[in-house]
Amino acid sequence: MALVNEHFLKLPDNYLFADIAKKVNAFKVMHPKADVISLGIGDVTQPLCPAVVEAMHKAADEMATAEGFRGYGPEQGYDFLREAILKNDFLPRGIHLDIDEIFVNDGAKSDTGNFQELIRWDNSIGVTDPIYPVYIDSNVMIGRAGTVTGGRWTNVMYMPCTAENGFVPRIPEHRVDVIYLCYPNNPTGTVITKTELRKWVNYALRNDALILYDAAYQAYIQDDDIPHSIYEIRGARRCAVEFHSYSKTAGFTGVRCGYTVVPKELTAATLTGERIPLNHLWYRRQCTKFNGTSYISQRAAEAIYSPAGKEQVKQTIGYYMQNACVMLATLRRLGFEVYGGENAPYIWMRTPCGSGSWQFFESLLYGANVVCTPGVGFGPSGEGYVRFTAFGSHERIEEALARLEKWTK
Amino acid sequence: MALVNEHFLKLPDNYLFADIAKKVNAFKVMHPKADVISLGIGDVTQPLCPAVVEAMHKAADEMATAEGFRGYGPEQGYDFLREAILKNDFLPRGIHLDIDEIFVNDGAKSDTGNFQELIRWDNSIGVTDPIYPVYIDSNVMIGRAGTVTGGRWTNVMYMPCTAENGFVPRIPEHRVDVIYLCYPNNPTGTVITKTELRKWVNYALRNDALILYDAAYQAYIQDDDIPHSIYEIRGARRCAVEFHSYSKTAGFTGVRCGYTVVPKELTAATLTGERIPLNHLWYRRQCTKFNGTSYISQRAAEAIYSPAGKEQVKQTIGYYMQNACVMLATLRRLGFEVYGGENAPYIWMRTPCGSGSWQFFESLLYGANVVCTPGVGFGPSGEGYVRFTAFGSHERIEEALARLEKWTK
Repeated sequence: MALVNEHFLKLPDNYLFADIAKKVNAFKVMHPKADVISLGIGDVTQPLCPAVVEAMHKAADEMATAEGFRGYGPEQGYDFLREAILKNDFLPRGIHLDIDEIFVNDGAKSDTGNFQELIRWDNSIGVTDPIYPVYIDSNVMIGRAGTVTGGRWTNVMYMPCTAENGFVPRIPEHRVDVIYLCYPNNPTGTVITKTELRKWVNYALRNDALILYDAAYQAYIQDDDIPHSIYEIRGARRCAVEFHSYSKTAGFTGVRCGYTVVPKELTAATLTGERIPLNHLWYRRQCTKFNGTSYISQRAAEAIYSPAGKEQVKQTIGYYMQNACVMLATLRRLGFEVYGGENAPYIWMRTPCGSGSWQFFESLLYGANVVCTPGVGFGPSGEGYVRFTAFGSHERIEEALARLEKWTK
Repeated sequence: MALVNEHFLKLPDNYLFADIAKKVNAFKVMHPKADVISLGIGDVTQPLCPAVVEAMHKAADEMATAEGFRGYGPEQGYDFLREAILKNDFLPRGIHLDIDEIFVNDGAKSDTGNFQELIRWDNSIGVTDPIYPVYIDSNVMIGRAGTVTGGRWTNVMYMPCTAENGFVPRIPEHRVDVIYLCYPNNPTGTVITKTELRKWVNYALRNDALILYDAAYQAYIQDDDIPHSIYEIRGARRCAVEFHSYSKTAGFTGVRCGYTVVPKELTAATLTGERIPLNHLWYRRQCTKFNGTSYISQRAAEAIYSPAGKEQVKQTIGYYMQNACVMLATLRRLGFEVYGGENAPYIWMRTPCGSGSWQFFESLLYGANVVCTPGVGFGPSGEGYVRFTAFGSHERIEEALARLEKWTK
């Protein structure tokens, strides 16, 4: 008899953003003429840059000829892209990686969700709270998160990041096996200093813990002294995997490309204490369950690293960061308590008068026809906050802010 | 302490095709001037058809404009493609599916590997033998396959398909929870009749088993009475998931697109006997661990269903099937015992004089500089066979056959 994996049944019924979409759709059905502005899901809006589009056309033309046609690519990605990654994302920061340590994928969500497959099912996990739901949900599905009580999973250690502690998570006092960190942070938009990040690397080395470091938003860092990669910290190669994405860097949410770094020095232990390199295990996993990323998407990603591509991508990021700047200023002027938005495309706002996250979400949707993301959807410490994204067009962001101003008066 | 998932350590060290590539590379290093012809990995060689390339250009242009830009698509795929699938792949065969039963993916390999996540870790599995290695390997990784002895996994039931039984697997006498079937078959190139397939559906319904049906090669079926989909059999919606791929249908091995059908009637049981619909669980899994397929790849797939696309794809399939026809005739003339190749792009050949699969692979590589796939790489019943693919160009196939003829003399 085919039995279901009952761990799935412990999950909240809907994925956060599917849930929001449902509520927004319900609103739209009732108010068909309302012009809803979404600052909810972190999706980009600006077109792909010309260098990327040109590369896509070129790749499509190649695929139309017998000589240029490409079938299965290497599961871990084409060397042309992996070399561009090494040369542009790591070497300038003094990080020397081997090409076999880069695994190109179809976006960071897949790998942040899948990497936990390499780890024993009963290892404990630690997360900063609030966090991106995929980290916990993917662990729930395999039974690693334990059971849920009052919105908390029994085998998950939550490290609160709130205004009260300046969004700096406290290093755990006891041992946690696997730790998820995301900086610049989704959803709070805050960053981590090298000093703080070093504490985490040292903690992991001391406790033989594994850090899964999500750097999907590193392209938004404006301050020179904020680390773009955990490998800027000595020793990180022995304890950390790093996830990168072109989704937010270059508007690839619909193109699908990113990459994961699994250093060769990185190991996990067997029960008898043998050290197993995770790089080879991940390679084996990818060869079995993944067939490489679209050739066109890989050529598109390569184009981001061309001189023209770099300049164009920088402009788009600047465009979004200008939104963030206006949003921060306006929301502050209106008396809201806001965080993030300086090195990240997210603004994290405390809901006024102690109202709950979902309550504020609904008020804002019905009162100003603006969509935000309820903070509690990212974890218990997100209650009493909402997230706004800076990914809209200037015009729409201004319109949303004008409505907010009118609504609060 | 981060502990490794020790199930990974039970896997054979390399994925079959990575292993072959290594051996071929070793040969090339020693014989740099040799012109090696690969009839090994099942990868297509003919360019994408014009309708597909045109759609890709159009999609790239859309993404370059503010109006046409598409960010995150629905995790389960765009409706334009899902509707084309319903209308073209199912309705003409009298199969009425709901759009929510179609999940577009980045190729069948991912989903055939991932779908087992929905099933309890200790359910038993049954496979026709030989089979595509992903089915077993993905179960090994989660511990479901048990332990391996003499090339056989303890929790896997092998259903031999050999010349002796006409490649018709026997229905198991005892209960198996999950059964993998692939027709037209990879690697043997054989097909299943409706009568035989009906037996499987009835077995599954009777035993509450789940069939994972891989239809990746259905576009190669030439005989009118061979089923293209398991849903041509009454009752299959209550017991089967079906995997489709554009990789072999339209040369998408480098473009990456396919789809999975998960009917709403399909359920699996909890330990207490509650029935859980797998459609919703798969939706939840995809929302959490997958972010949709490239928009460009989805538009490319849609173009296959246009009148021009259909005609062009049919021509390419005809081109490969002409190869298969020539290969079958030549190999038979040379006295080899060959199977498949009539409704599938694969030829399954018994190795002469009882030589082992790998032994023949090496002889052929060193003697004729032609690469085949050793049958034993697909399972114990594949020993004593090799697989040839018909995906080359006419010229290369003829050259390979001429070399084989010379070599056998």
